[in-house]
Amino acid sequence: MTLRITLLAGGVGGAKLAEGLASLCPHDTLSIIGNVGDDQEFHGLWVSPDIDTLTYSLADMIDRRQGWGLTDESHRVLAGLERFGCDTWMLLGDQDMATHIFRTQQRRQGVRPSIIAKRIAGSLGVEINLLLPTDDTVQTRLRTDQGWLAFQEYFVRERCRPEVHEVRFEGASKARPTPEALAAIERADIVLIAPSNPIVSIAPILAVPGIRQALERTHATRIAISPLIGGRTVKGPADRMLAAMGYPCNSQGIAACYAGLIDGLVIDLSDAADRRSLEAEGLQVLTTGTLMQSGDDKAKVADRMLAFAHACRREEANA
Amino acid sequence: MTLRITLLAGGVGGAKLAEGLASLCPHDTLSIIGNVGDDQEFHGLWVSPDIDTLTYSLADMIDRRQGWGLTDESHRVLAGLERFGCDTWMLLGDQDMATHIFRTQQRRQGVRPSIIAKRIAGSLGVEINLLLPTDDTVQTRLRTDQGWLAFQEYFVRERCRPEVHEVRFEGASKARPTPEALAAIERADIVLIAPSNPIVSIAPILAVPGIRQALERTHATRIAISPLIGGRTVKGPADRMLAAMGYPCNSQGIAACYAGLIDGLVIDLSDAADRRSLEAEGLQVLTTGTLMQSGDDKAKVADRMLAFAHACRREEANA
Repeated sequence: MTLRITLLAGGVGGAKLAEGLASLCPHDTLSIIGNVGDDQEFHGLWVSPDIDTLTYSLADMIDRRQGWGLTDESHRVLAGLERFGCDTWMLLGDQDMATHIFRTQQRRQGVRPSIIAKRIAGSLGVEINLLLPTDDTVQTRLRTDQGWLAFQEYFVRERCRPEVHEVRFEGASKARPTPEALAAIERADIVLIAPSNPIVSIAPILAVPGIRQALERTHATRIAISPLIGGRTVKGPADRMLAAMGYPCNSQGIAACYAGLIDGLVIDLSDAADRRSLEAEGLQVLTTGTLMQSGDDKAKVADRMLAFAHACRREEANA
Repeated sequence: MTLRITLLAGGVGGAKLAEGLASLCPHDTLSIIGNVGDDQEFHGLWVSPDIDTLTYSLADMIDRRQGWGLTDESHRVLAGLERFGCDTWMLLGDQDMATHIFRTQQRRQGVRPSIIAKRIAGSLGVEINLLLPTDDTVQTRLRTDQGWLAFQEYFVRERCRPEVHEVRFEGASKARPTPEALAAIERADIVLIAPSNPIVSIAPILAVPGIRQALERTHATRIAISPLIGGRTVKGPADRMLAAMGYPCNSQGIAACYAGLIDGLVIDLSDAADRRSLEAEGLQVLTTGTLMQSGDDKAKVADRMLAFAHACRREEANA
């Protein structure tokens, strides 16, 4: 029997695990719920960076060197916009621009953002079920030393330099979950949470009313993988953010972000010392190498995570 | 004393004369009223082909080989849109796309299209007063063998092959002229009409209520230049359209299109036989070489046209 797997994923880290899973699982058994909290309008075009990173990665069109954007990219549209005095710190490529133009046109025509994401993915040859948590607008806002910033302003323009004091998901309280995302969580056999930033990549998904509840209710085995390696992130500001939000910057901090939402946690070998206290909290723990660099790494980490989820399922069944 | 000159111009032919005038006249004495009837939305972006051709020509950024679009252009955005199943017969370049993205965003922000056109031109270094006849939407529609077509559908997609039976300027009756265009006609010393298609390039300008009346009322000397050479157009379907609309396909036909709106007509040497009947209708006539290929041609034709306008002014003053 083939199990139905649903992954909650942010951008770059999420896309790596998604690729690993895609290399192992029949594509029609795999659903991925992405993050739309990073979405922002640039030059009147709706840009959805995390969803695009997932799509481009799964389509094998991603720029592998930087982990986002399309390979073999040029920036002539942006150079033109700069000539008109537009802010061009968000590095949108020419091929990438087609995605934003298409998405924006479809949104203006009233097509559900979920359907648009599916059309874009389908056009690029992605057969995996790529889902949005909501068709409504939810936008991550960060209160920093420099005041409130949109996520891309913080992440790209300010290069994560400002200290973050508070995180809000604008629009979340009124957002409605998509039936597809709810079903993917409720009907899954295994729900995985990618090694993405829990504060700004996974939390905006969980902030959509109904998503957290579905994750609490589901009969699926729920496994997260920590984005920390030796108590630090490979890339991005998750470690600093954990501390700023009052979480310990270690596996316990990650587990606390997902309290009540996971049955097991995968942690890196370098964080093996955290194991005992996690188990004391009633979590199943897998300690393994979690660094994903090559395609081979991604498949290995995904494979171990799936094997761990299977083992947890058997244990639950026997309990 | 420097005379104030206003040119009514369509796309490629209009841009050539505009360049010729720009090479001779102080830029702050020159106003150009362009055609917005060719405007059409593509991929959710507002494209204004005739205005862009004027702007790019005056900025010396035009693709000289084809007469439209930007030089050294690429088409990666369009290739991306094609992948999403979009119709891509309208060949929009990457650099050009920046213009359409900027224009569309500014329109959505409520900026007057006239101001947007001025900003685009200014950003590209054009100091000439480039004006729109209206800030409202006027769209040229052609009834053909294939039914009603938008101008770009007829011109680009169908390559002018269908026979045209009727021309309408949708939105014209309710359009309001821009105060800038009215002032440019009313306060000009000389109004020139470019060798553009009278039926689909100049008529949509004149169809904006108030523009024709301003041209009738102005004290300016009004000179048109025929787009015909030996009774045929250099490029484009103006000759076939004249015939289809019931005009003779010669200088008299052009004069009839502008009846009551011009004091003089410039015709090509190869159409010299038309001179007498034009004069019999009370028009001043200049017979000269009108073909504009090189930059030198453009300046020569503009120079002769201006000298002719000056002569007509003196004649009027003496009358």
